[in-house]
Amino acid sequence: MDDRTLLTTVMGIVGRERCLDDCAIIPFGDQVMVATTDMLHASTDFVCGMTDWQIGWMSAAVTISDIAGMGAAPRYVLLAVGLDRWEQLAGVMQGANDCCTRYGATIIGGDIDRHGELTIVSTGLGIVAPAYMVKRSGARPGDLICVTGTCGQAQAFLEGYTRHKLALFEPQPRVAEGQVLGRAGVSAMMDISDGIALSLYDLFEANDFGFEIESAKVPLPAGIPKLQARELALFGGGDYELIFTCPEEKHPVAGVPYTVIGRVIHDRHVLIDGQVLEKRGYQHTWG
Amino acid sequence: MDDRTLLTTVMGIVGRERCLDDCAIIPFGDQVMVATTDMLHASTDFVCGMTDWQIGWMSAAVTISDIAGMGAAPRYVLLAVGLDRWEQLAGVMQGANDCCTRYGATIIGGDIDRHGELTIVSTGLGIVAPAYMVKRSGARPGDLICVTGTCGQAQAFLEGYTRHKLALFEPQPRVAEGQVLGRAGVSAMMDISDGIALSLYDLFEANDFGFEIESAKVPLPAGIPKLQARELALFGGGDYELIFTCPEEKHPVAGVPYTVIGRVIHDRHVLIDGQVLEKRGYQHTWG
Repeated sequence: MDDRTLLTTVMGIVGRERCLDDCAIIPFGDQVMVATTDMLHASTDFVCGMTDWQIGWMSAAVTISDIAGMGAAPRYVLLAVGLDRWEQLAGVMQGANDCCTRYGATIIGGDIDRHGELTIVSTGLGIVAPAYMVKRSGARPGDLICVTGTCGQAQAFLEGYTRHKLALFEPQPRVAEGQVLGRAGVSAMMDISDGIALSLYDLFEANDFGFEIESAKVPLPAGIPKLQARELALFGGGDYELIFTCPEEKHPVAGVPYTVIGRVIHDRHVLIDGQVLEKRGYQHTWG
Repeated sequence: MDDRTLLTTVMGIVGRERCLDDCAIIPFGDQVMVATTDMLHASTDFVCGMTDWQIGWMSAAVTISDIAGMGAAPRYVLLAVGLDRWEQLAGVMQGANDCCTRYGATIIGGDIDRHGELTIVSTGLGIVAPAYMVKRSGARPGDLICVTGTCGQAQAFLEGYTRHKLALFEPQPRVAEGQVLGRAGVSAMMDISDGIALSLYDLFEANDFGFEIESAKVPLPAGIPKLQARELALFGGGDYELIFTCPEEKHPVAGVPYTVIGRVIHDRHVLIDGQVLEKRGYQHTWG
């Protein structure tokens, strides 16, 4: 059993349309509020060697990244912290607070719990004008498929490439980039926290078309043999870049470094170099 | 170390004023949005014998109760669920969804995680007109101290009084009551999830005055020897009644059953029958 399969259970109870985007959408006067929540915990998310400050930073960053993926501006964060050792709280809160401040958000509330394992749930609220909001749906055949930055760096660190440590320990969500892309009129967007491949399948799920990328165009993490680097970029998790589709006439979007890696196609497939792309990446699984 | 002491650490980082109420407050056009988050997990919150549905219900109810404590109407809930056994998800989601529906809220988003222990964080958003919002601060000397319903029932079940099982397993947050009290102009309010005594100290912390109650006036759970019943009502956790202060000229508030148990006083003490009330109740502690 994996989390994406389990999501169909949730869809049956709360409705499918509530499960397709990085954030929920709430009417907010003439603007839109977006809302998202993320659970992280020691055994699967907080890697050995991370400081408490980095754990707090990461916990805020993952939620802020979901807001960035909608083209919205992060505003408010709530943090529920379950602690096995209370001594970690100050560092965690300072890291989360610094990350929020860096990206224009404020910690407005939270909960402190005693827990067998350090567990942090960050909930983020952002604001965006309806016209500039970008959902996972909206891609049209012919649109370019693009990614910001370089994927696979976080996973590269886990496989021994220590130069990529900060990509995993102090992720920098693409907040300014997401808003510029939203204003520029990109057609669909999300963050790539579970690898390019799974993100393409998430976009596939939310759209009626297909997605084809070229392996030679995928930007690869530096200092790693090419085949391994490609594996990391496509299937590794823990990066917080944005993947988006862009109508050709709106490309290039000024002010955001990104790479075109493919195109939206009519065929209902996710392809790489003409072959079906493996649906594999960072997932929670239950045995 | 206990959670209320640890909160002072958080105050030093995010600001004291952000830590005094059941909910954070966000401007929302001509209304106010209130936001709150709560972490619950198997070893401390989900009692043996609870069904998955009841676990889900409780997880939504605790957050909805915080919204009720501000006099607000619950609107949106996000649910992060960490599962050791994925089979529990459907029941948990159904229970949470039913609780939300019962109280006028909708589950708009969430996260599914694999976790060593069933852990649920519910985040709730509510709406209220600024004039009808009630904070923990605002109590004035002479105001009556009042509680809805009967406290101590959830703890009574834990001590063997099985007739009180549903109080613990299926808490009914005082949503309608909270809004009526807010519109009636009560001066301060919060929910009593950690017992009357700790709630009085929380009100004490948020106000510049003191609080005095009479033990004979505290409504007691039925079918329990009086001394034990009083202990449960004052110091037991897991009930979701409202405690509030009410200017004498606004009492009685029509349509809400409640009991007057004392008065706000000038003296900076929390008293019961003229003696200092023990600061004790449901708390998370670290050894």
